[in-house]
Amino acid sequence: MNRVNLGLVGVGTVGRGVVSVLKRNADEIARRLGSQPTVVAASARDLNKAKTFLGPDVVVHADPIDVVNDANVDVVLELIGGTTDAKAIIEAAIQAKKPVITANKALIAEFGNDLFTLAQEKKSIVAFEAAVAGGIPIIKALREGLTANRIEMVAGIVNGTTNFILSQMRDKGTSFDESLKEAQSLGYAEADPTFDVEGIDAGQKLAIIASLAFGIKIQPKKVFCEGITRLTDVDIEAAEEFGYRVKLLAITRRREDGFELRVHPTLVPEDSVIASVNGAMNAVLVHGNAVGPTLYYGAGAGAEPTASAVIADLIDVIRDIQGNTECERPHYGFQVSELSDFPVLPMGSVRSSYYLRLNVSDTPGVLAQIATILAEYDISVEAMRQREPDVGSNAVDIIILTHECDEQAIDLSLGKIAELETIFGSPTRLRVENI
Amino acid sequence: MNRVNLGLVGVGTVGRGVVSVLKRNADEIARRLGSQPTVVAASARDLNKAKTFLGPDVVVHADPIDVVNDANVDVVLELIGGTTDAKAIIEAAIQAKKPVITANKALIAEFGNDLFTLAQEKKSIVAFEAAVAGGIPIIKALREGLTANRIEMVAGIVNGTTNFILSQMRDKGTSFDESLKEAQSLGYAEADPTFDVEGIDAGQKLAIIASLAFGIKIQPKKVFCEGITRLTDVDIEAAEEFGYRVKLLAITRRREDGFELRVHPTLVPEDSVIASVNGAMNAVLVHGNAVGPTLYYGAGAGAEPTASAVIADLIDVIRDIQGNTECERPHYGFQVSELSDFPVLPMGSVRSSYYLRLNVSDTPGVLAQIATILAEYDISVEAMRQREPDVGSNAVDIIILTHECDEQAIDLSLGKIAELETIFGSPTRLRVENI
Repeated sequence: MNRVNLGLVGVGTVGRGVVSVLKRNADEIARRLGSQPTVVAASARDLNKAKTFLGPDVVVHADPIDVVNDANVDVVLELIGGTTDAKAIIEAAIQAKKPVITANKALIAEFGNDLFTLAQEKKSIVAFEAAVAGGIPIIKALREGLTANRIEMVAGIVNGTTNFILSQMRDKGTSFDESLKEAQSLGYAEADPTFDVEGIDAGQKLAIIASLAFGIKIQPKKVFCEGITRLTDVDIEAAEEFGYRVKLLAITRRREDGFELRVHPTLVPEDSVIASVNGAMNAVLVHGNAVGPTLYYGAGAGAEPTASAVIADLIDVIRDIQGNTECERPHYGFQVSELSDFPVLPMGSVRSSYYLRLNVSDTPGVLAQIATILAEYDISVEAMRQREPDVGSNAVDIIILTHECDEQAIDLSLGKIAELETIFGSPTRLRVENI
Repeated sequence: MNRVNLGLVGVGTVGRGVVSVLKRNADEIARRLGSQPTVVAASARDLNKAKTFLGPDVVVHADPIDVVNDANVDVVLELIGGTTDAKAIIEAAIQAKKPVITANKALIAEFGNDLFTLAQEKKSIVAFEAAVAGGIPIIKALREGLTANRIEMVAGIVNGTTNFILSQMRDKGTSFDESLKEAQSLGYAEADPTFDVEGIDAGQKLAIIASLAFGIKIQPKKVFCEGITRLTDVDIEAAEEFGYRVKLLAITRRREDGFELRVHPTLVPEDSVIASVNGAMNAVLVHGNAVGPTLYYGAGAGAEPTASAVIADLIDVIRDIQGNTECERPHYGFQVSELSDFPVLPMGSVRSSYYLRLNVSDTPGVLAQIATILAEYDISVEAMRQREPDVGSNAVDIIILTHECDEQAIDLSLGKIAELETIFGSPTRLRVENI
């Protein structure tokens, strides 16, 4: 199997996430790719710490540019913060004609146009899926999945910190300050939260999104940003009374005379999908003129979700390098030689929670009979409710939610319950998934 | 500009959708691609109708195989129903080494394994994004966007007909039969709805999804299918009382000893994102071991959403054919020469609805003053509510929702309102987006 050698610039949260996902999923990635990407060189501020983490097989350089120019390195992963060094590293990779993958949103927002121009000149690749909305493949959706469309509008929850704060304010009725403190104590917000709560982070992401949606230059300075610091619990509650939830949305819209680019707290209808995006999660709604509305939801930050996007870019890049058709877009997404013949399991072996509705005679002792049978099969009841009988009827519905158990146990117990004289008709059984 | 010549097999609902989207978005597609895909040949059951629709520049063949073998055709679009002819057409395209794109889910579910084997042998491409969940780029997400992950579980609402019926049953309290009739009268359900309501359609899609998620053969016959025909409004209501909604889910899960493949009505927590997927829309939830849960939402059927997926595949295929790096994955998703310099619009020109909260003196005439000022600026009020004052306080909150108006008008009117002696502090203004 071919090996593709990676140069890792930055061994912080994201760098470590990439290394551990590459290791944990090495088999699955090799099944998809037909080759094994391996970190062979790295640079980090703390050389010894990096060496300990990466092990003896990885050469650790003091200067990141040495990683780029390391003759063993095929692909560069730029995973440091800030823009000055990061820009120099990416430029060096482009000059060396080595594909470079970055998770650096601030860098792409500020210098993306220059870097893309240079990359095009040198016929090289800068990949940046991880720069927007973490693990959600939104760059790919805009650039490849929705190419048939004239994109009319994109509206996203692209900052997890503020979405967490707003969810807290709604769920617990706490103030902005209290909710921010909670976010900080859970690690969702920085000690200096300005960048997030003033909408600047969301604005940078929006500038990148708009560029890909409409084919315009990345223009972060033109984004209107209004943060969430002045929001009160009174407003969140009042919005709720009108049927709305408050979200910090990053919105870009095509109009006849130009484009809107704006980040601000926004009331959205409570029954919309985007209103149901809670906690630190992200979601991006894209309106195309052929497909209509589509939405992409997932974790927008964190070591492993970000690593997921970095490695997806890496695999795209390797498929491009390897170049033959079956490798680039294998029909199954896996190499044909690597298809698994693991069995499909019989339904009886499935484990699930269950909803049971039994139409029974409204007489004493029925529930005890049912409960006894369920207990015989080790089925434990999470909740039970009896519905009011119809007027003049002797039949009532008993509804039971079970804890997780084997489908087979449910089937056997229901067979036995159906034989009771106090049961009318056949029981209803539905599965419950707490997803 | 290069031209890529398309052979269109089938000029029915989807075929017409593809033609009209290609035409309507010709400029945008050319900006992305640097070339212009053009239908040059077609086949259809009704030759005259097809000729009238396609115009004089398209050669209409009686035999679909003649479309495949037409020397002018570079890429074949297979957009007929059924599996017998469709299979022969795709095989002919593979043999002719012409990339072929299909929207035919039944065909891929039943014969995908054979077709992929043949395609790999001939180093050719069969693309099928449109076969699962219509316009949602879920094949791309599984095959490219989430490649870093070991996929653990996929759960999808992949049949719009049944989701529409279940939404009706919940919203209107109607029975299954009544809701089915409503779906039929709106064109969401066929005269013979068996394929949809018994979960067979969802099962075929699930078999394809599982194959891409886990790297296994497509095994539609192993899918457990339980439909929604026996669901009653009683169950939907009772589930609701326990905090759940009922959805027809297609679920596949990796377990230590194999894979689960099952379609059945399922109770999902009411505050989950998938519970908020209503009407004929589709959504697919994917759990990866690095990214965690991600979800993809959009229209799962219909002429133009399906065309969106067919053309996305087409553009992928053309980018592959053209082969140079910048063309395959252009950084902006558009050709650099085609970037637009359309302006970013000033915030004052944005139109939106607004939420206003004004803390006012609880005295007669205040509301009239405010309403008069709003009217002066042509701002019309959709809803108004006064909140109970705090005990002992003379101040009350008036909350106003406006209809859509210019941001500038709102700003000017608020400036004037803030000058009123009856107003305390500065007004709160939030934007409302009915997305």
